Amino acid sequence: MDLTNDAHTDHISQQFNDELERVKSHLLEMGGLVEQQVGDAIKSLIEADSELAVNVRATDKRINQMEIDIDEECTRIIARRQPAASDLRLVIAASKAVNDLERIGDESAKIARLAMKLCEEGESPRGYVEIRHIGDRVRRMTQSALTAFARLDVETALAVAQEDKEVDREYESAMREMVTYMMEDPRSIKRVMNVIWSLRALERIGDHARNIAENVIYLVKGKDVRHISIDEMEKVLDK
Amino acid sequence: MDLTNDAHTDHISQQFNDELERVKSHLLEMGGLVEQQVGDAIKSLIEADSELAVNVRATDKRINQMEIDIDEECTRIIARRQPAASDLRLVIAASKAVNDLERIGDESAKIARLAMKLCEEGESPRGYVEIRHIGDRVRRMTQSALTAFARLDVETALAVAQEDKEVDREYESAMREMVTYMMEDPRSIKRVMNVIWSLRALERIGDHARNIAENVIYLVKGKDVRHISIDEMEKVLDK
Repeated sequence: MDLTNDAHTDHISQQFNDELERVKSHLLEMGGLVEQQVGDAIKSLIEADSELAVNVRATDKRINQMEIDIDEECTRIIARRQPAASDLRLVIAASKAVNDLERIGDESAKIARLAMKLCEEGESPRGYVEIRHIGDRVRRMTQSALTAFARLDVETALAVAQEDKEVDREYESAMREMVTYMMEDPRSIKRVMNVIWSLRALERIGDHARNIAENVIYLVKGKDVRHISIDEMEKVLDK
Repeated sequence: MDLTNDAHTDHISQQFNDELERVKSHLLEMGGLVEQQVGDAIKSLIEADSELAVNVRATDKRINQMEIDIDEECTRIIARRQPAASDLRLVIAASKAVNDLERIGDESAKIARLAMKLCEEGESPRGYVEIRHIGDRVRRMTQSALTAFARLDVETALAVAQEDKEVDREYESAMREMVTYMMEDPRSIKRVMNVIWSLRALERIGDHARNIAENVIYLVKGKDVRHISIDEMEKVLDK
């Protein structure tokens, strides 16, 4: 074999690996920022901190730009490097995860907007305990989903999917409480509705964290586990 | 040039074109089914037709499977054909559109579930006019977005994005009315909440139709127009 050529190939594949690593690190950087957005949005709502809420909404623009940039990076790698199966899966999974992160950012910005409305219209008499609780949970789920992605860790990914089911249950129960409360005190409806929309946004964040986790499972196992139950998912993963 | 080789290349590129056409036609087939789901979901809600609602929820499983299948098709094409810039864009755009279609399907299934709840818990005293109106609009937007995709028609895509802004306005106004109504008649809160969630699902369908339309613009113009205002979008398209 021609040594020069070999060195050339090594060089190319080193560049390619660098590019893949860069996408991954950009994704995790975006993830870190998004996770902070979730936390700040919840804080702005619970502490009626309209300044923090304004910040969250401003930062969302940066996150949108990150989505576009990383997506472009992914397309460029596919076009120029024509990656083989497992590398291609990584790039596609990254591009999908970026999309979910952007949506988590969107939901955080929505919560920040609701925090501002609650500052103007007056606090809701109920719902803050639920927001803090479910909010903490989905923020941690977002973090775990990213850790799972970084480490290609299927166990953690599965745990996130399992936790999303619990979040859905807690969300349903909180929602029933809010409806009951509105019936008892109709004058509070407008303000409680802001809490309802916030809870809804948090529940969506949980869904997106779960999507990222399912993506990790696809990446590691090559199996598409969207739209299947946790039981089926455990079977796929031989649990 | 070697004629045999040429014939071979022609053969490969013919196969490749066939594969691209097949993805496109599968996408449009899925789109047709999703559009029907939107219509049926709205009908089941307005006419309190629980049988139709059950159908919509059953069909959603088929749509989920279509997403997985077409997504696999896209990944396979990228891995095996290593398409160049514009073809790659088509495959990526198709894969994203499929994801939005699946979510439109999801929102339709949610509406069907709310239709079933309204059948059990009793009709809402208000909101059907708004659901019919906004529902018709987002169903047509879904259709237009798919037409824009099939014909690579930027004008139609832009019109969908513009219409989404109007839908958002109508949604906000309908939402204010529902809140006012709940305050006037607190006993109706539970039932009106089902209408509120349905309106919310319709508004999300509009968002997804807009995503598909933005995707068409990316495909034709190579410009990412997510996260920008309609004014900026018109500027990008030299309107």
